[in-house]
Amino acid sequence: MPRYALKVEYHGAPFVGWQRQRDQVSVQGMIEAALAKLEPGPHAIAAAGRTDAGVHALAQVAHCDLERDWTPFRLSEALNHHLKPAPVAIVACAVVADDWHARFSALERRYLFRLLMRRAPATLEHGLVWQVPRRLDVAAMRAGAAHLVGHHDFTTFRSTICQAKSPVKTLDALEIAEVEGIAGPELHFTLRARSFLHNQVRSLVGSLERVGAGSWRPDDVKTALEARDRAACGPVCPPHGLYLAGVRYGVDPFA
Amino acid sequence: MPRYALKVEYHGAPFVGWQRQRDQVSVQGMIEAALAKLEPGPHAIAAAGRTDAGVHALAQVAHCDLERDWTPFRLSEALNHHLKPAPVAIVACAVVADDWHARFSALERRYLFRLLMRRAPATLEHGLVWQVPRRLDVAAMRAGAAHLVGHHDFTTFRSTICQAKSPVKTLDALEIAEVEGIAGPELHFTLRARSFLHNQVRSLVGSLERVGAGSWRPDDVKTALEARDRAACGPVCPPHGLYLAGVRYGVDPFA
Repeated sequence: MPRYALKVEYHGAPFVGWQRQRDQVSVQGMIEAALAKLEPGPHAIAAAGRTDAGVHALAQVAHCDLERDWTPFRLSEALNHHLKPAPVAIVACAVVADDWHARFSALERRYLFRLLMRRAPATLEHGLVWQVPRRLDVAAMRAGAAHLVGHHDFTTFRSTICQAKSPVKTLDALEIAEVEGIAGPELHFTLRARSFLHNQVRSLVGSLERVGAGSWRPDDVKTALEARDRAACGPVCPPHGLYLAGVRYGVDPFA
Repeated sequence: MPRYALKVEYHGAPFVGWQRQRDQVSVQGMIEAALAKLEPGPHAIAAAGRTDAGVHALAQVAHCDLERDWTPFRLSEALNHHLKPAPVAIVACAVVADDWHARFSALERRYLFRLLMRRAPATLEHGLVWQVPRRLDVAAMRAGAAHLVGHHDFTTFRSTICQAKSPVKTLDALEIAEVEGIAGPELHFTLRARSFLHNQVRSLVGSLERVGAGSWRPDDVKTALEARDRAACGPVCPPHGLYLAGVRYGVDPFA
């Protein structure tokens, strides 16, 4: 029973999130339904990151087990055929070892958050960026972000419904790039960690936006982190600026 | 009666195009309806480029005449308020002279065409790029494009319903940039001219795609041009990769 790794891109808007839920449209459910068109199910696939409702993915990674030997090309073609017209696409596919696991073999997740700084409402990029109506102070945001990188108790920056056993995580990187997008100046936040807490990225970016807007000083981020209190967090960003941008494994299955 | 120049961004998908048409939703009609909420109409606005159904704009330019003196900021804010939720936004606004005309004062139009080269269906960029399933030979396309720049009879590359008096135009530039987009490798075609014929950009890009795919040799573009025969044109590209990207005036009204 060969195992296949799938790299998946999706637009988060129409979905309740990655995870299958009864009577609701999820990305996992869409892919499992497409698999059932190829081989009788039930299919239960596993993914590296369980993205929330509205969150996009450039490179989610999942795996599935099938009876037949499919070439990766034919499998991705067949899945993309059955996924249409849903905004979910298999952008890469590979045969992996039986004990390879999309979630447990992952060494690092990378998220991208796109923030558009302009006053006029986004039209072309609507739903693909979080928009704020003014320029933010990027130097101040970077100073605030420096307090967050490393091994910390992130209680302040996790959802109260987060199910992780421990709030202690290591944030390997939080970089902020200034990008001239098609609709205007954007900030691209890139965050890397072995794993993230629920709502961690949106909580961190939302708090840094407060720094960029001048409502918080950079050191207020440190104070909030050290409070270990959800009430100390800034506003949580909306999901539509967030993208699961990549998952790193010991050996890249798609290389 | 002050005159205002408007820089307009829009997503082309829901519209029959720029131009007002009875009983159909046009960008011009949306903006005129928004103006009528500010001052009783009828309003008739003029634009630099009459984009077709499905074509986007990053920086269409139009002008309107109003009774009241509006500050540019208040006018764009008020219009954006009334334009919601349509994907049309006033991204800049300026007071201009009474004899300034968005169409007749324009010295040059610039169009962008986005082509995504990948096999898996676009999800996030769906409707914002034209997708082809394979890599194209950019060097060959540039060699083909070189035949098109300059003063030519573009009969081959204009729609049979084009109403321009003459098929002779000067194409000032046709550049092809390789861009790593969020969903994969893109080609960005930038075309500049004082004015364009109907369907000219989509006809030119469609013919160059044939060169990139190896179906045409670069010199076949020259042969097609010299044929002055619409039947010699390659397939016309779909509208959703095309953007009116800018309009140049002697003095930039928005500077």
